[in-house]
Formats: sequence, structure tokens, C-alpha cells
Amino acid sequence: MKPRIVLALGGNALQKKGENTAEAQKKVANSVGAIIAKLASKYEIIVAHGNGPQVGNILIHEEQAATINAPAMPLETAVAMSQGQIGYWLTQAINNAFLKLGKNQKVATIISQVVVDKNDPAFKNPTKPIGQFYSSTEAKSLAKKNHWVVKEDAGRGWRRVVASPKPIDIVEKKAIIDLASSGIIVIAAGGGGIPVYRTKVLKRLKGIDAVIDKDYAAAKLADLTKSTVFVSVTAVPNVFINFKLPGQTPIHHTTPKEISSLIKYGYFKPGSMLPKVEASIAFAKKPGHTSIITDIDHLTEALQGKAGTIITK
Amino acid sequence: MKPRIVLALGGNALQKKGENTAEAQKKVANSVGAIIAKLASKYEIIVAHGNGPQVGNILIHEEQAATINAPAMPLETAVAMSQGQIGYWLTQAINNAFLKLGKNQKVATIISQVVVDKNDPAFKNPTKPIGQFYSSTEAKSLAKKNHWVVKEDAGRGWRRVVASPKPIDIVEKKAIIDLASSGIIVIAAGGGGIPVYRTKVLKRLKGIDAVIDKDYAAAKLADLTKSTVFVSVTAVPNVFINFKLPGQTPIHHTTPKEISSLIKYGYFKPGSMLPKVEASIAFAKKPGHTSIITDIDHLTEALQGKAGTIITK
Repeated sequence: MKPRIVLALGGNALQKKGENTAEAQKKVANSVGAIIAKLASKYEIIVAHGNGPQVGNILIHEEQAATINAPAMPLETAVAMSQGQIGYWLTQAINNAFLKLGKNQKVATIISQVVVDKNDPAFKNPTKPIGQFYSSTEAKSLAKKNHWVVKEDAGRGWRRVVASPKPIDIVEKKAIIDLASSGIIVIAAGGGGIPVYRTKVLKRLKGIDAVIDKDYAAAKLADLTKSTVFVSVTAVPNVFINFKLPGQTPIHHTTPKEISSLIKYGYFKPGSMLPKVEASIAFAKKPGHTSIITDIDHLTEALQGKAGTIITK
Repeated sequence: MKPRIVLALGGNALQKKGENTAEAQKKVANSVGAIIAKLASKYEIIVAHGNGPQVGNILIHEEQAATINAPAMPLETAVAMSQGQIGYWLTQAINNAFLKLGKNQKVATIISQVVVDKNDPAFKNPTKPIGQFYSSTEAKSLAKKNHWVVKEDAGRGWRRVVASPKPIDIVEKKAIIDLASSGIIVIAAGGGGIPVYRTKVLKRLKGIDAVIDKDYAAAKLADLTKSTVFVSVTAVPNVFINFKLPGQTPIHHTTPKEISSLIKYGYFKPGSMLPKVEASIAFAKKPGHTSIITDIDHLTEALQGKAGTIITK
């Protein structure tokens, strides 16, 4: 039996900075797909991914060109659209990489709803800016009309902000496990998942505009699918102490306890390395689990224990 | 063993005319979802669906609000986005309908690539208008810049036209069969599928801007997944001879041969009933196969042989 692993692809494993045409993004997907296809001989792979720039552009297009006949889609539906978009590119890229290797292994993307708690404290203090910039007047008028929260963004204009609640469950987990078990590479929980909550009556699913951190969602996915390894694939080969400062030191092997104790020194930036470290700790706390933080170039070595930041109990 | 069936949902099973906000479309999905969830006690169900108005609006938004930083996505990627969007709505609707029935059955959407032949004669004569209207000058300039074919659309302005090639294969068929076999309702081949062709070298997949007829794709899906019934769920309870003319007569039970012989009289309009009839004939030609054309209100009765147009050898 191959070990089951979850790879959470960050922004730069999906897109070169500023190169955001479909063609340019497909090229990046192709190079990542080649690495994933090679790893598939040793691991049962589930791929999660971010969607920041992609869903941002979808929202900008939806909002700027909205008319009565072609109304803008809400954020939760835009996340679903970005899952289709990025999932398609990754599926095709991994498929083609398998063909190059002479293998017939299959790949599939599952549109994924991720359940959050409507009473998550994050909804009381939305912090995640999304979509385009507006003038103060426009922003306040849109806030009133659409029940948005808007905030000024570091002098660059006003933007909508949404909550970033914690993932609790993944609605499609059985489908994801079924496909992984039958040898198919699965792409799931894209962009942290489509945020949904369960209503009081009948526990029905209902979409809610929010952004779920993709590393939290991917670590949850790893746990729910009984994976033994969770990898956050990011822009740097390791987690560092004093990143970009004098005394910068890479962390190689560590424990959840040890790396937890470093958080309070402010070594890991919120919205950047901190969520990756926190998601990795949450996963690695369980016995038999390993979390890895590394970049795409060191992924294969890191899975062999020879690179990256590796967190185990 | 439950019989496996493919339901191809047409435009009006997804959207009430002109009501195209996400909320309005979710309401329609909820009512269709309730019917599908009830049928799931008797059938193993795979759902295909159209995407005409949805992908149209995505393209309009993508093209009208495109900038260098947020470039427009091509048609093939827009189809993937529409699969995410509509798949999410349908998945959630069917999920919630199961909860109402007190059932724990699962639902999942698979992003689906449908293979076409790059030498399909349709590519020599693109006929399917997509996206927004342009002035003659704009259209001709865009055609030159983007290698589009543009045509004047009945005096309403100029539009891009693309080919509508025949579906040959569905890349994700194994994933679809695996999920259906494990009792999960699968939503697949949305909008006729993301059009891809196989390159000469290595038979790699490559996206191509085209529109695959959703009924042809769904009938192909039914065949590839070894389903025994294909239903085209459309706006009318039956196929009619002399539709909306004096002597209008519904067709109840017929054979592929009999209904084929009616095509030449021009009873079935191209771009409307004709592709449904043709897709139904193609599927029903094989022994043990049944094709049905009906509306959502008669779906349950039609599956019992008591309504709709039923085509068997």
C-alpha cells in the first residue's frame, strides 16, 4: 500500500508572479504536474491548492461587468468557479505528465464544499480583503446595498473584507477517499473549499461569503482522508527563524511542540508562514502524522526526509 | 442492483427565463435536486447539464472587464468555471434534498474534459455564437487579434462563432464510474464538457475553444458509463410532430428507426429538438438501451414508461 499524502499547492506553485493568462498558468501547472506524476509511483496523492489571484480576478470581472442580465456571482460561487478553472488545468497537466511517463493513471477534480461554523468568531471581525478597490463613497454604498463589510486598504483604496473561518468538515470527503483508494489522483478543496455552513433546521448546507485558509483546509483534508503526510508547498525550501533578517536559520526537523514555542516570538508572519505552520502543527500532533513545509523544487527530497521543514511528534 | 441512468438537464431545468442571479438559480437547482434525490432510491444517477446562459455570462464578464492584470479566460477554461459553478449548486441542492429525506447518500461533481477530433468537420464551419455582441469594427479587430471567427447575428450585431464538434470520449470516465458504483450521485460532463483534443505527439490533452452539444456529450457519457437509460430533460413533456403547428402530435413510444425517419421531414429544429433526438437515437440503437425525452415534471413517470417520448429498439 502506498502512503496517502496531501499536497497543498500555494500561489507560486500555480502562477508565476504577474503571469496570469490561462496559457501562462497552464505552463506552471505542467511543470508541477510532471513532479506530481513522478511522485505517484510512490504515494497515493490528493492535491489541494490556493486560488487567491484567480478568484480575485474572477470577482473583479464579475463585479465590474455586472448587469441585470449578467449579474455578478457571489464569492462562494466564485470559489466554485475557481475550483473548476484551476482543477481543470491541474487535471490536464497531471494527465499529460502520466502520458509522457507511459502511464495510464487517472486524475480527477472534485468540486469541494468545506463546512465552517456560522458562529466562528472570524465572522465578527472580517479581515480578508477580496475583489477590486473602490473609492470611499463607492465602497460605502456597495456595503449598504450588498451587506458587505468594507475597509480602507493601506492607502490604496477601499475593499470588501470577509471572514476567514476555520474548516470543520469537507462535504465531499467520501468521494475523495473513494477515488484516492481506486488509484486516482484527486484534486480537492481548491482555494480552501467553497465555504458553507449547516443550518439549524435539518443541518442543510448553505453557502456563505468567506475565505477559508487553504493550508487549514488542506490539513483538514489530510486528516479526514486518513493521509499520513501533509505538505504545504510554498515559495521557500524551509521555514526560517529570522526570515530575511540577520541570523536567518532554516528549520529542518522539528516537533509540533518545539515549533509551537517559536510562534510567540513572531518569527512567522500572519497571512504568510503562520497559517502554514499552524496547519502543519494541527496535523502533526496526531501520532503517525508528518507535516512538511517546502517549495516545489525540494518536494521530492523532502518526502524522503532530506529537505524541507519536517514536523513530527 | 439499481439501473444506472444519465439525466441531461437542459437550460430550463437550471434557470427560469431571465432569472440568472446565483440565488434564483439555486432555487431552481433545489426543486430539481428534490426530484433527483427521490429517484435515487430506484436508480444509480449520473447528472449532466447544459451551461448556455451561465458560460455566456462568464464570457461576457471575462471579456468586458479584462485588463493586463486580470486577463480574460478562454472559452475552454470558462466551461470549466461553469462546471464548478453549476456543479456546486446542483451538488448542494441534491445534498440538501437527501437530508430532507433523512438519507445520508452523497453527491459529487467531477470536472470533465470531453475529447473531440481536431479534424471534426465542425471546425471548418463554426456556427455556435458565444459571448457578447460587438460592432462590425470591434468584431473584425478582435477576430484578427485573437484568431476568432466572427459573424453577424441576425441584425443584432457581431459575435464570435465557434465549432460544435462531436464528443468522442470523456477523460474522467473512470472516476465517474467509480463514484457511481460506490453509490454517489455524480454530476459530470457539464456544458457538454471542457472541449479538448489529443495531440499527435503522445496523444496529450489540449484544450480547444468549442462548444460540445450537451445532449451528445450526455448520451456519450451514458454509453461510456454502461448506463441503460439516457434522459434528455428539456422544456416539453414529449417530442412532437408539427410542434406549435396545426396537427401537433406527441410521440410516446418509438424506435430509433421510426424517429430517424421523421427527421427528414424537418419536424425537429436544429439547435433545439434535433440534437436531443439525434443523441437519443445514437444511445437507443444499442440493445438494452432506452432514451427518453421529457420535462422535469414528467421525469419520474417517464422513467416508469408512463410519460415522455421513449425510444427503444
